[in-house]
Amino acid sequence: MLDSWNDGAAKSAIVDFVAHVTKEGGADYVPPAERVATFDNDGTLWCEQPFQVQVFFLMDRVKELAAKDPALKERQPFKALLERDAKTLHAHGKQGVMELFAATHAGMTEDEFERIARTWFAKAEHPKFGRLFKQMTYRPQVELLQYLRLNGFKTWIVSGGGIDLIRAFADEAYGIPREQVIGSSAKLRFEIKDNHAALMKLGELNSFDDRDAKPRNIGLHIGRRPLLACGNSDGDLAMMRYTKGGPGARLALLLHHDDAEREVAYDREFKLSPLAEALDKASDYGITVVSMERDWKTIFSPA
Amino acid sequence: MLDSWNDGAAKSAIVDFVAHVTKEGGADYVPPAERVATFDNDGTLWCEQPFQVQVFFLMDRVKELAAKDPALKERQPFKALLERDAKTLHAHGKQGVMELFAATHAGMTEDEFERIARTWFAKAEHPKFGRLFKQMTYRPQVELLQYLRLNGFKTWIVSGGGIDLIRAFADEAYGIPREQVIGSSAKLRFEIKDNHAALMKLGELNSFDDRDAKPRNIGLHIGRRPLLACGNSDGDLAMMRYTKGGPGARLALLLHHDDAEREVAYDREFKLSPLAEALDKASDYGITVVSMERDWKTIFSPA
Repeated sequence: MLDSWNDGAAKSAIVDFVAHVTKEGGADYVPPAERVATFDNDGTLWCEQPFQVQVFFLMDRVKELAAKDPALKERQPFKALLERDAKTLHAHGKQGVMELFAATHAGMTEDEFERIARTWFAKAEHPKFGRLFKQMTYRPQVELLQYLRLNGFKTWIVSGGGIDLIRAFADEAYGIPREQVIGSSAKLRFEIKDNHAALMKLGELNSFDDRDAKPRNIGLHIGRRPLLACGNSDGDLAMMRYTKGGPGARLALLLHHDDAEREVAYDREFKLSPLAEALDKASDYGITVVSMERDWKTIFSPA
Repeated sequence: MLDSWNDGAAKSAIVDFVAHVTKEGGADYVPPAERVATFDNDGTLWCEQPFQVQVFFLMDRVKELAAKDPALKERQPFKALLERDAKTLHAHGKQGVMELFAATHAGMTEDEFERIARTWFAKAEHPKFGRLFKQMTYRPQVELLQYLRLNGFKTWIVSGGGIDLIRAFADEAYGIPREQVIGSSAKLRFEIKDNHAALMKLGELNSFDDRDAKPRNIGLHIGRRPLLACGNSDGDLAMMRYTKGGPGARLALLLHHDDAEREVAYDREFKLSPLAEALDKASDYGITVVSMERDWKTIFSPA
């Protein structure tokens, strides 16, 4: 296990923590039912560069919509997306991404969206790395998820990305079932048409699962404070501090993208999901920083 | 298994359904990961008469609050609750109950509420049946939950009751872990005080988990259409029709409280949670009616 992790402080922190909470009779022992580990997705479990996979998906969806309705090519933020105008897109921020999300994901049932997403994932490739997006996962993290599950943890995704898109690949990519995915979500409407009941996705945001919303949604969906949380941006800081705020042994891991050679080196300047406070205050908050360059033997999962 | 169920149409429907969806190679086979069973709680898994257990809890909480702030005794719906004025209370409906919920459950952290709820459940008794509320569960239903789990199902509660109160006893009473409880919920605020992070329960409703909200919250929390749903009121009808709306074998069970001798006989006239449309249309909608009098050998779980 953890074969893709180099020996060092980060790997030791993980192994020591798991040993403590699983040692029966030990001071930090936690029964399996309470072993909750929550992971951010974009930039934590898979690559989010040059922007989140969801943006690629949105781009392809907007292309399809624009083919049917050319007026869309002149409307923002659709225009910026189609023209790969990163500056304008960044100016619209995460909220802008969510607006695109709502516009492109609404007006269809959950079942229909699932089919669209699975069809896309089956073929869509990362333009730089030349592999399927669903294979852009980090091998050390997939190992960590498996290691935690083998030690009785339930592993969850708590992502700012759209919950339904993640559910369409998380089981295959990470071994995380649909019901253990928390993400940003649209409001739903229950409909019965021609005697067929379905959930219709609406173009209205239900929850933008970022920053404080992460622990709030953990409270709603899980109802337990995590023992371990892992993220890579300030959007994950509330979740990490919530995790560290419980009694006994807790582990908060912050993945630092410092490997320009094997992936992309970035933190503060990534406007879609910056990392600043969490990095500056990691030591104050008891957060363990994971360096991709130093701590990971390999980056990506095998194709 | 199912020892407390009498032989008959209802038990046969359950056993046949489970046999179909678990038969490998069969036309209706469903892999274990997709075997989702959702149960209403009040009146479905435990007694909701003369009113829901949550109302008893609220009453005790309001008594505590009124001892500190006597003005509360003159305000509605608190007054009606303290005076056990069922008519006025019914006039305030489910929404009134939720107002009381918000007023009595707010202004404390999730951890604090959990302690209050557990303390209450350890001692609080049903006034008529003279047993602890947490022992007011239906034995045939606890057996059904176990039977489903032994057949690879994940069992969930999808209740109009408050999610945090149910979480405080569902594991002990039903073997259902906290993360498989969906219910009405208050908004939460993430707070850091004295460097301690916590979730504060607010006096504002997040979701009133009844009628259409049940399938919508199933979509949010589970992301899978249930194979089996069980309820006892029109508040559960949308969940049952959503369940029946999927392909392959599906089972919707409607518990009918027709046993005046061993419990309470009621349906249409129970204002807090009436049963009318679901009963009238059961056959049209493919819903299997369970008669407590006819189908259940015993009613309550052993004390």
